[in-house]
Amino acid sequence: MTGSDAVDLGFARVDVGREARQGLPEVVYGTGKTAVQIVSIVRTLLQHNDGPVLVTRVESASEVLDAVPGGSYDESARLLVWRPAPRSTFTVVVAAAGTADQPVALEAAAIATAVGLDVTLVTDVGVAGLHRLLAEQDRLRAADTVIVVAGMEGALASAIGGLVACPVVAVPTSTGYGAGLEGVTALLAMHASCAAGITVVNIDSGFGAAMAAFRLSRVACRSTS
Amino acid sequence: MTGSDAVDLGFARVDVGREARQGLPEVVYGTGKTAVQIVSIVRTLLQHNDGPVLVTRVESASEVLDAVPGGSYDESARLLVWRPAPRSTFTVVVAAAGTADQPVALEAAAIATAVGLDVTLVTDVGVAGLHRLLAEQDRLRAADTVIVVAGMEGALASAIGGLVACPVVAVPTSTGYGAGLEGVTALLAMHASCAAGITVVNIDSGFGAAMAAFRLSRVACRSTS
Amino acid sequence: MTGSDAVDLGFARVDVGREARQGLPEVVYGTGKTAVQIVSIVRTLLQHNDGPVLVTRVESASEVLDAVPGGSYDESARLLVWRPAPRSTFTVVVAAAGTADQPVALEAAAIATAVGLDVTLVTDVGVAGLHRLLAEQDRLRAADTVIVVAGMEGALASAIGGLVACPVVAVPTSTGYGAGLEGVTALLAMHASCAAGITVVNIDSGFGAAMAAFRLSRVACRSTS
Amino acid sequence: MTGSDAVDLGFARVDVGREARQGLPEVVYGTGKTAVQIVSIVRTLLQHNDGPVLVTRVESASEVLDAVPGGSYDESARLLVWRPAPRSTFTVVVAAAGTADQPVALEAAAIATAVGLDVTLVTDVGVAGLHRLLAEQDRLRAADTVIVVAGMEGALASAIGGLVACPVVAVPTSTGYGAGLEGVTALLAMHASCAAGITVVNIDSGFGAAMAAFRLSRVACRSTS
Amino acid sequence: MTGSDAVDLGFARVDVGREARQGLPEVVYGTGKTAVQIVSIVRTLLQHNDGPVLVTRVESASEVLDAVPGGSYDESARLLVWRPAPRSTFTVVVAAAGTADQPVALEAAAIATAVGLDVTLVTDVGVAGLHRLLAEQDRLRAADTVIVVAGMEGALASAIGGLVACPVVAVPTSTGYGAGLEGVTALLAMHASCAAGITVVNIDSGFGAAMAAFRLSRVACRSTS
Amino acid sequence: MTGSDAVDLGFARVDVGREARQGLPEVVYGTGKTAVQIVSIVRTLLQHNDGPVLVTRVESASEVLDAVPGGSYDESARLLVWRPAPRSTFTVVVAAAGTADQPVALEAAAIATAVGLDVTLVTDVGVAGLHRLLAEQDRLRAADTVIVVAGMEGALASAIGGLVACPVVAVPTSTGYGAGLEGVTALLAMHASCAAGITVVNIDSGFGAAMAAFRLSRVACRSTS
Amino acid sequence: MTGSDAVDLGFARVDVGREARQGLPEVVYGTGKTAVQIVSIVRTLLQHNDGPVLVTRVESASEVLDAVPGGSYDESARLLVWRPAPRSTFTVVVAAAGTADQPVALEAAAIATAVGLDVTLVTDVGVAGLHRLLAEQDRLRAADTVIVVAGMEGALASAIGGLVACPVVAVPTSTGYGAGLEGVTALLAMHASCAAGITVVNIDSGFGAAMAAFRLSRVACRSTS
Amino acid sequence: MTGSDAVDLGFARVDVGREARQGLPEVVYGTGKTAVQIVSIVRTLLQHNDGPVLVTRVESASEVLDAVPGGSYDESARLLVWRPAPRSTFTVVVAAAGTADQPVALEAAAIATAVGLDVTLVTDVGVAGLHRLLAEQDRLRAADTVIVVAGMEGALASAIGGLVACPVVAVPTSTGYGAGLEGVTALLAMHASCAAGITVVNIDSGFGAAMAAFRLSRVACRSTS
Repeated sequence: MTGSDAVDLGFARVDVGREARQGLPEVVYGTGKTAVQIVSIVRTLLQHNDGPVLVTRVESASEVLDAVPGGSYDESARLLVWRPAPRSTFTVVVAAAGTADQPVALEAAAIATAVGLDVTLVTDVGVAGLHRLLAEQDRLRAADTVIVVAGMEGALASAIGGLVACPVVAVPTSTGYGAGLEGVTALLAMHASCAAGITVVNIDSGFGAAMAAFRLSRVACRSTS
Repeated sequence: MTGSDAVDLGFARVDVGREARQGLPEVVYGTGKTAVQIVSIVRTLLQHNDGPVLVTRVESASEVLDAVPGGSYDESARLLVWRPAPRSTFTVVVAAAGTADQPVALEAAAIATAVGLDVTLVTDVGVAGLHRLLAEQDRLRAADTVIVVAGMEGALASAIGGLVACPVVAVPTSTGYGAGLEGVTALLAMHASCAAGITVVNIDSGFGAAMAAFRLSRVACRSTS
Repeated sequence: MTGSDAVDLGFARVDVGREARQGLPEVVYGTGKTAVQIVSIVRTLLQHNDGPVLVTRVESASEVLDAVPGGSYDESARLLVWRPAPRSTFTVVVAAAGTADQPVALEAAAIATAVGLDVTLVTDVGVAGLHRLLAEQDRLRAADTVIVVAGMEGALASAIGGLVACPVVAVPTSTGYGAGLEGVTALLAMHASCAAGITVVNIDSGFGAAMAAFRLSRVACRSTS
Repeated sequence: MTGSDAVDLGFARVDVGREARQGLPEVVYGTGKTAVQIVSIVRTLLQHNDGPVLVTRVESASEVLDAVPGGSYDESARLLVWRPAPRSTFTVVVAAAGTADQPVALEAAAIATAVGLDVTLVTDVGVAGLHRLLAEQDRLRAADTVIVVAGMEGALASAIGGLVACPVVAVPTSTGYGAGLEGVTALLAMHASCAAGITVVNIDSGFGAAMAAFRLSRVACRSTS
Repeated sequence: MTGSDAVDLGFARVDVGREARQGLPEVVYGTGKTAVQIVSIVRTLLQHNDGPVLVTRVESASEVLDAVPGGSYDESARLLVWRPAPRSTFTVVVAAAGTADQPVALEAAAIATAVGLDVTLVTDVGVAGLHRLLAEQDRLRAADTVIVVAGMEGALASAIGGLVACPVVAVPTSTGYGAGLEGVTALLAMHASCAAGITVVNIDSGFGAAMAAFRLSRVACRSTS
Repeated sequence: MTGSDAVDLGFARVDVGREARQGLPEVVYGTGKTAVQIVSIVRTLLQHNDGPVLVTRVESASEVLDAVPGGSYDESARLLVWRPAPRSTFTVVVAAAGTADQPVALEAAAIATAVGLDVTLVTDVGVAGLHRLLAEQDRLRAADTVIVVAGMEGALASAIGGLVACPVVAVPTSTGYGAGLEGVTALLAMHASCAAGITVVNIDSGFGAAMAAFRLSRVACRSTS
Repeated sequence: MTGSDAVDLGFARVDVGREARQGLPEVVYGTGKTAVQIVSIVRTLLQHNDGPVLVTRVESASEVLDAVPGGSYDESARLLVWRPAPRSTFTVVVAAAGTADQPVALEAAAIATAVGLDVTLVTDVGVAGLHRLLAEQDRLRAADTVIVVAGMEGALASAIGGLVACPVVAVPTSTGYGAGLEGVTALLAMHASCAAGITVVNIDSGFGAAMAAFRLSRVACRSTS
Repeated sequence: MTGSDAVDLGFARVDVGREARQGLPEVVYGTGKTAVQIVSIVRTLLQHNDGPVLVTRVESASEVLDAVPGGSYDESARLLVWRPAPRSTFTVVVAAAGTADQPVALEAAAIATAVGLDVTLVTDVGVAGLHRLLAEQDRLRAADTVIVVAGMEGALASAIGGLVACPVVAVPTSTGYGAGLEGVTALLAMHASCAAGITVVNIDSGFGAAMAAFRLSRVACRSTS
């Protein structure tokens, strides 16, 4: 990193060269940062990069939006976005098992959309209601990638993994109680899945799944050239 | 327990009054017992009771069978049986997710059969192949009880729990490796299931599931009288 | 699921065909849902089904009750009920080990009652006071099913499992502190129980136990016809 | 420790002053030690002390017995003893839940006997057969201390803790499989017990329980003088 | 239990015969109970028994004290006591490792005192300052029983276990952070202790330790008669 | 599944329609299957499908190879292959942290090759030797997908995740000892990674990673058409 | 400890001889102590010792600063200091992986500075951005000791352990969510590290790391004399 | 790494530049490597470096010693050494709690000696025998560094941490059974220690502790120049 890559804001040293160097969009983790800090980081990233700038897990956005023009806030996804990427032809289906899994699914969908993917949300398709899942088979099979969001026992990942041949990114969620162990059970279960070749990201990490899908979309693009 | 209920064999005190008192058949846990000890216990139970006498998890049966006439050995289920109960009209489907789950499924089926239930075995219906599971829907729905045997992520319990309205007894198995944690993941996942009202027994306990089904069959009988 | 089975409320897609398809009553999980959402879901279910409609874990009911007439609220069980089922002859005893286990026991009892079972509550029968448990033997033995609610070490499940021959559904609770690990110890202990054929549901899940009992009651009914 | 307290055998430095200093008998942990090493340690302890000398968990004793005269070997308890203490009037009941718990119970009983306690063994009194446990009430209540040996869910500790007012020392065992987690479940369950004032030692540690009972016997003696 | 043993207060069925039957004093667990409920239970116990009546973990006592005369409240131990037992000659030393362990130590000391034991409190003797521990050797060795209260790594139990020959009851506490795992580490460490014959009670359970000591005191008394 | 999709071999029901239905190649899990069973399954799959047929985790291959002509065995990968797919232009780099991770890396590489991917193996690039990792930067950045195989602390996944923008599939391995917890630590660490959008498969599952890469390769193909 | 070493403040017995006896500076753990208690302890320590007196994890300092003159408060490190040690030539680099790890890094840096070490803070050098880490190589290699502060997967410890030959003290932090298990994953991962000879302290314990560095600085001093 | 730094042996790529680059001696982990592989690696390292070459955890050494002259084998430490470093003045005391901890202590001592440290071994000083530990105080306090090797509850680390002011490196061992959880309990306990500034390495890692001590010795050397 040359000196110009690092901008020191005092409370953090912002790496403004990552987009150019690695090719991933800039996403700031909002938890624990003050509005003033977020404003400062976002301004720096917008100035030194050309692509999208996102801030995740933002509970209160108005102060930041006022200070840095051009942004938009998705309350249900708790996401701030500046300069969203244009929609590509890479299609992602975000499938959520239950109503309680929606916040994570919405975060995944909003981030994936902001970085340019073509996203469809499919909800309430948990394995306890197989007919509802099977009714979505065609949509799932048409996707370039499926993000599966499921808590409790996380069985939806296995079921969809057996239905489609495209990449499946599973997100365990911390929904449920007791034996769900705040998402650890779903995470372990998704890894122990009987469906071949599904992959897993961290508990409640809609962000991780969206970024995994973005990485996938780049391969598809590169392969075509 | 009056004195006549307890028979002291030195290495164990056998409760010969349980069948009469509680109404459950006698099942001896074979692991860790010598052939001589098993012979001694089985003889005592046969003498003091009228119902079936079973010994589970028996690796080598010939010595016992020679010493106590009238028994039969099911090698795949590792089960010894004397005086099996006549078949009742109570139907149990034992559904196993994968090939590796069969030893536990066979134990459940053999014990349930020996205590008088009408058992059907359905195999290779894991959720990664939903079409195979759905092809068995009618058989599953016709059962009085379904025993679901599944390791790895244990998702089959949720799927079947959403298909049928009869009692579902789930048996997690220790198949798989890594994140399966030798059955603990499946056990937790089955408890965190999104399907309402399914119940769970111990890891690899085909015996536990068969006995749970036997208890269910008694209710059905009592209710009709 | 045909189109008419799914009613899309925006925040959730309600499956209004389950009662007809599977035969289980409709129970909505209240945690995390707003009064407005609950009202919307309940209205939809009442309109498309004929049976009971329940909402569990509701802390504040008045707004919903005002908006959807005909409901009743059980504060100690935190349960909302519309169109409760008529009482059948299927008897359930809910046995709670200690005073701290009562909220879970009351949830189990209220849901079981609302779906038509004939419920008796027996409290303060933990194994540290065996004489109190034994004083209830006759009531326990007369039941079609016993739901055992116990936290801490969960030993009551083993003790009752050895007293009765009917189905035993054990509910571990998160009562106690320290080594109880918020119910995980009781859950594991109930699975490791020395009593044959008892089954277990999720921690604190009075709902799960009641639904398991409902499934049992259906078998009894079917078997008699 | 003065120089004469420590005897250096090369592979270990033996503390020959503990008996005099602290007042506990000398017990050597046999696992992982060769017969030659055990002979050397035992000789040293016999020479420098006056009380009993014990070696636990010894699988093969003949070589040691030949080399150090005056010893005896209890095969079922895997215990070597020299100079056992005369029997005192302090009574201990060792209560074992199941047949599989007997090796641990026998170790506890043999060690307690060797250090001078008056031991009675009561077996097969698990809580799944309460009538058998209650049949032993009088013996349990007459004891100065009860050692409870139980694996699986370990419920016997709670049940006996509620029957007697004397000290109860619970020993979880690694019997059982699956959710028993090799004794960890029983250990946690015994700590979470609803019975007041019972105490717990390490998994499978018949030795620990016997030594705890010995400590108790000393209090009784001291209090009387 | 005859009818007169059980007093039904609606929210709980109070066992008023335990003192007579088993011989342990009555201790009510205050957590989760309202002042009105505590008043009701305490009145019932005072009326039907002769011995001490205690309520533990009470944050606010004035309402109860006003309603039930004759009680006293120890704020630091969060303990309510009526009819404390006269002091016996049975001596208990409560040794606390650090300042943060004092609340648990004070609970143990206050309960042990209320049930009649002769209690001394020794604080700040953690193993990281061995000279302070050794300075208390004589007091520790003179005790009939030592209760060791320690969190973090719980090493004090091993150290004291090696110093004294009387019974040692170890109480792990949830003090500390990170790797202490809220007391689980100390609990496991105390069980794995290299000191022979020490016993352990539940995390933060000053109550459990005091009751264990009370049980010990009864043995001493019985043995002398 | 129509009747012709399922071939019942007695010990297993083989799904011969999956290749056509879902599009994934057939991979049989060899652990626990006899040579005779493997022969039977492989023959059935070869007969009903056109694509590759693989058997993983095979310790001894000669009997199977003799019985089913046309196969080849890779001993270091423990893999049997019939009808390998022609090499596509989709490039995969398998990067292994240490020498001990090689068996899992070799399994991943061999399976990926057999299903048609263009695989390069890069070894000994653990993060404790960053210069070796950085020396491979160009190869890593040129890949369509990187499979990272690492045990112990699994840090290589984070490091590579920060270097490349293509999909990263991390495989935790059970190498190392103690705090590595047989791969669980690496699995958790990979999920908690600070690198955005990396995904994880089961412990030691070279198979899972290869199949995930295969799914990725299909997207690239589909996107180009 | 002679009588003069211990000062009894009622709520705690302060060891005022440790500095002289052992040679470590006095650091008081502030959590759970009232301002009045802190004032009392600090006064006692200042009076009986000559070196620095520190109080960690203090949220609100003004009351204490007013009562005990001469102190200073570092809000970001939550540290109170009296009589800081003069700066020695022993250099410590505190390297923090991410912005969220800064509070722990600042605590480590502030304490190390207060006890006389020459501290440099290096931030935002997580392994997902290796170029930023490598840009700091020279500073890291010039240090006498490196304290590595990292949460999530804790991989920075391995990377730095492979870059430098000086002592590395790793501090896992509880940053991150889900699979990070509040720091336990980072702690285990740091222990399983592939870098030789790195050592680890408790989760979030900037204090522990600073004191470990102080111990190191003493060796360097002693060795030179 | 220039090309000359890496020597590719087929089964591994040996980094022959580490000694020059980083300054740590070369230590090969022997587990899982064949004699032929070890010979090949050792020859390569001897040829390209000047310092010591070690191989740890070697069960059978004769074949390697024959093939590579100049080496020596320490059977109790399972260590092979070529070109041991001359003894420096940096003193290390390795203190082992019990006899069962000796293999790990011997590995630490042998490796530390081979890399040039001046090592003293102190055994059988567990905290259950404080007088034996205190008898070694002077030796412990004279050391430049103390390595503490302890299993079970690992309390020795806290005790020694409170006695000395030099660096303390704690090694948890997997000795003991049950609640010791194969070393995990000791590892956690050592981290939760009440002694300030002690550090911890992986379970059973005598190697890790020796290398940590070597890093410390380098600081001492550098500081003096």
